[in-house]
Amino acid sequence: MKNTLLLVLVALGLAAQTTGESPQYAADEHLTFPADYRQWVFLSSGLGMTYGPAKSADPNHPLFDNVFVNPSSYRAFVATGHWPDLTMFVIEVRSATEKGSINNGGHYQDAVQAIEVEVKDEKRFPQKWAFFPFAGTPTAAALPADSTCNTCHGQNAAVENTFVQFYPTLLEIAKQKGTLNAAYLEKNR
Amino acid sequence: MKNTLLLVLVALGLAAQTTGESPQYAADEHLTFPADYRQWVFLSSGLGMTYGPAKSADPNHPLFDNVFVNPSSYRAFVATGHWPDLTMFVIEVRSATEKGSINNGGHYQDAVQAIEVEVKDEKRFPQKWAFFPFAGTPTAAALPADSTCNTCHGQNAAVENTFVQFYPTLLEIAKQKGTLNAAYLEKNR
Repeated sequence: MKNTLLLVLVALGLAAQTTGESPQYAADEHLTFPADYRQWVFLSSGLGMTYGPAKSADPNHPLFDNVFVNPSSYRAFVATGHWPDLTMFVIEVRSATEKGSINNGGHYQDAVQAIEVEVKDEKRFPQKWAFFPFAGTPTAAALPADSTCNTCHGQNAAVENTFVQFYPTLLEIAKQKGTLNAAYLEKNR
Repeated sequence: MKNTLLLVLVALGLAAQTTGESPQYAADEHLTFPADYRQWVFLSSGLGMTYGPAKSADPNHPLFDNVFVNPSSYRAFVATGHWPDLTMFVIEVRSATEKGSINNGGHYQDAVQAIEVEVKDEKRFPQKWAFFPFAGTPTAAALPADSTCNTCHGQNAAVENTFVQFYPTLLEIAKQKGTLNAAYLEKNR
């Protein structure tokens, strides 16, 4: 019976692991690209937002950004309003198309232009959160702790180091749980 | 050993069921709202697209649409280019906000304006696919088989009854698997 229970737990563990949810690092400390991120939880998207890893130089050709988070961290946030250690965000930037098929207006999404991963790894990074720009490579090095990503998130993020102000379902949870950053509350009174 | 294997399979089955992926109907045949759809697989989003359940009357205030599909059907599509029976799509329409926090341009997402579910249920619907507009209610009736949703999807969808032409990751798979509709290929040569 003990063996049976063990097997059941192993089976459930394998089912959870298939999503590759925790950050994995190569021998050189570079982060491995989370290949399954399109099966993670979608937080929101924007079009032509004036921040982020790949701004469009031409306002007539704005870019979409999609944000995903690993599923177990999403469920932890819904329960607590906080991000657990080893949380991973992916921001995927895509070009926008205007006309095609039956669409005669507005914009829909086309090819990937940039991907950046944000990781919370308290043991590995003194500043807890780190950013990894991927340029089609299987691994990426962390940006320095004083990068513009780190600085802007540190100064403006609504919850910890994350832009929950742009994720409508999570913003409500952070308000309910009282986990909005004091600096964010001060600026947005 | 046979009992052990059975228990392992039951455990994996329970893990899959927790997402509530299959369509559930109330006694009056109305579809039950799939409450966990924000944990399903995101396919894409658009802004101000000129089709869909909730068009904005004012082009200066376009709406976002987010499309989600149940995870097991997503994995089946990646493997085959086809949608299995009991596939469920959710299209969620949200208003767009322009200025807030550090964003000084472009648009990001705000409150839900409309939600519509599309279901493939071959035994229940002679036309195989049906549409259910939810207006904040726990259940919704199917639109008639000659609704504008059914007609437009039937005439213009890229794969079966679905607008895969607007989902960049799936469009590539449909091309590779050769599952694009003949009528779509004819119109988009």
